[in-house]
Amino acid sequence: MPANSNRTVLLKNRPAGEPSEEDFALVEAPIPEPGAGRFLARTIYLSLDPYMRGRMSDRASYASPAEVGRPMVGGTVGQVVRSNHPGFAEGDYVLGYWGWQEYGLSDGAGVRKLDPRMGPLSYALGVLGMPGMTAYVALLDIGRPRPGETVVVSAASGAVGSVVGQIAKIKGCRAVGIAGGEAKCRHVVEELGLDACLDYKSQDLDRGLRDACPGGIDVYYDNVAGPVLAAVLRHINRGARIPLVGLISQYNATGPTPGPDLMPLLVQRALIRGFIVSDHPDREADFLRDVSAWLGEGRLTYREHIVEGLENAPRAFLGLFRGENFGKLIVRVGDDPTRPGGA
Amino acid sequence: MPANSNRTVLLKNRPAGEPSEEDFALVEAPIPEPGAGRFLARTIYLSLDPYMRGRMSDRASYASPAEVGRPMVGGTVGQVVRSNHPGFAEGDYVLGYWGWQEYGLSDGAGVRKLDPRMGPLSYALGVLGMPGMTAYVALLDIGRPRPGETVVVSAASGAVGSVVGQIAKIKGCRAVGIAGGEAKCRHVVEELGLDACLDYKSQDLDRGLRDACPGGIDVYYDNVAGPVLAAVLRHINRGARIPLVGLISQYNATGPTPGPDLMPLLVQRALIRGFIVSDHPDREADFLRDVSAWLGEGRLTYREHIVEGLENAPRAFLGLFRGENFGKLIVRVGDDPTRPGGA
Repeated sequence: MPANSNRTVLLKNRPAGEPSEEDFALVEAPIPEPGAGRFLARTIYLSLDPYMRGRMSDRASYASPAEVGRPMVGGTVGQVVRSNHPGFAEGDYVLGYWGWQEYGLSDGAGVRKLDPRMGPLSYALGVLGMPGMTAYVALLDIGRPRPGETVVVSAASGAVGSVVGQIAKIKGCRAVGIAGGEAKCRHVVEELGLDACLDYKSQDLDRGLRDACPGGIDVYYDNVAGPVLAAVLRHINRGARIPLVGLISQYNATGPTPGPDLMPLLVQRALIRGFIVSDHPDREADFLRDVSAWLGEGRLTYREHIVEGLENAPRAFLGLFRGENFGKLIVRVGDDPTRPGGA
Repeated sequence: MPANSNRTVLLKNRPAGEPSEEDFALVEAPIPEPGAGRFLARTIYLSLDPYMRGRMSDRASYASPAEVGRPMVGGTVGQVVRSNHPGFAEGDYVLGYWGWQEYGLSDGAGVRKLDPRMGPLSYALGVLGMPGMTAYVALLDIGRPRPGETVVVSAASGAVGSVVGQIAKIKGCRAVGIAGGEAKCRHVVEELGLDACLDYKSQDLDRGLRDACPGGIDVYYDNVAGPVLAAVLRHINRGARIPLVGLISQYNATGPTPGPDLMPLLVQRALIRGFIVSDHPDREADFLRDVSAWLGEGRLTYREHIVEGLENAPRAFLGLFRGENFGKLIVRVGDDPTRPGGA
């Protein structure tokens, strides 16, 4: 049942460069009432993702910016608590996009009902949601990995990268991760089953890539850009494919950031292509079918990093850019009745 | 008839950074005799092209380096003066690859006979040869220009770029060139028929591109990389295609050269793809058919920059990297009986 107030995190300022907690404000507002054709949901999980940094700015990007003084945007999983919408009943679990608040209203547009028997509810924000679909579609449709090829993925323990590396293995490739720190690298090899993982914080990437990819690199799934991309380009094979899915290394930059030497692209007739998952709704059915099956068969594992309490969302979000999360970053905003006692 | 000596330009040193005339040596050697199955040709034209800079180095590239102490490599047009090859007779005009020398031997591999009635012999080194085919295939197969789209091309008055811009117009696109200096820009608009041309030496490219491409840029045919590519990326449309065909701005660099900010590739879901013409022999027939027809119909014009004398080849080649040529750079090594009295 609703409490008496709806705690909300607003975007307070548009940051220049690295955001800080001062750019957010935690406020209390009355819990809204759903009008005709709407429902009210109690937030259980809030997703924190690197793309949100772009929404905090007002420069042109692939989606509209968040508005100053309004709740920060973000994917949410919740439970319907009041409904005037014929398609949603009290008690239904739903995936929506009402942002950083304890309660949200929806007219049902873009909302998907969730069946808790299909797996943890929070997976709808990760492996069975936007990050998982980003991994699946960009790897398969741009990367086009063939059995025996070598796939390298950056941010390899993260929400997207961890799925990429495991799909590469399922597709019969040699898979090499790049991650920050020994614990993440161990996880990538021991739990996710990749062939190797390089620690960009402590290893020389050029030497590491040469050793870990003796046949060169055919596909590089890039979540980070920056010096990692530059190093990978020095080891690509002829006809390499590089889906460019994230540039997290430069999301906090205040101006254009120099990129890598592109000479290897010419010499190796290689391809870099930008990718945004929302362009590909036609691939959702394939994605859900395949990834659900792989999860069910135990061929794909998924790690979450769950932070407790909406008030901790800003700090946790800032940590994304320093690699402080280990797995998909999720905020538990309210109780999850399907997982009593926590994750 | 052969004279008594075969003047030859050798690669003397592998330059670090910008080459100089000291890296070449002009020597005289006896005119060789063709053995069984070979012919001797007298060089009429030698092609000078930016890719030759790569051949002077021994770092990995898409073709083997030239050898120190051996003739510099290069495309040539000549006339057979002695033949022990059943397929080539004295007097035949041929396109070959015997390099920077007055006489060359060939076993006929990769040699094409030329019919002087089909146009100037030197065109086989340009609009009807490797540069023209590079323009045609990379523009059509990677750029995929559609009528009404905007195509931008760098080095727009050069051997490749001038063909790209005119094909873009033939395909119904808005075509905008980038070139160095007012004379070249005037030529691009007035003689080649492009809609606009920006002078990268004197204009602010950001402002120029905004004005010249009010609908944004759909295809950028890149011959130069460097700051021009960085500026173009700031104006690309969603789904833009960028064939990366040359990086002349950095061919003399001694180490990796920082590239452009790649954020626009992600935001606009755009594509950069490296291209080497020798991968596409299957497209030669289409290329020769279409470009010959366009030349014959007067829809395509072509400008050559002809330097007299093999001894001037090194200096002319060095000028390529400073944009000193205006049109396809060719050295007339010997008399052209089909164009008595010069070009």
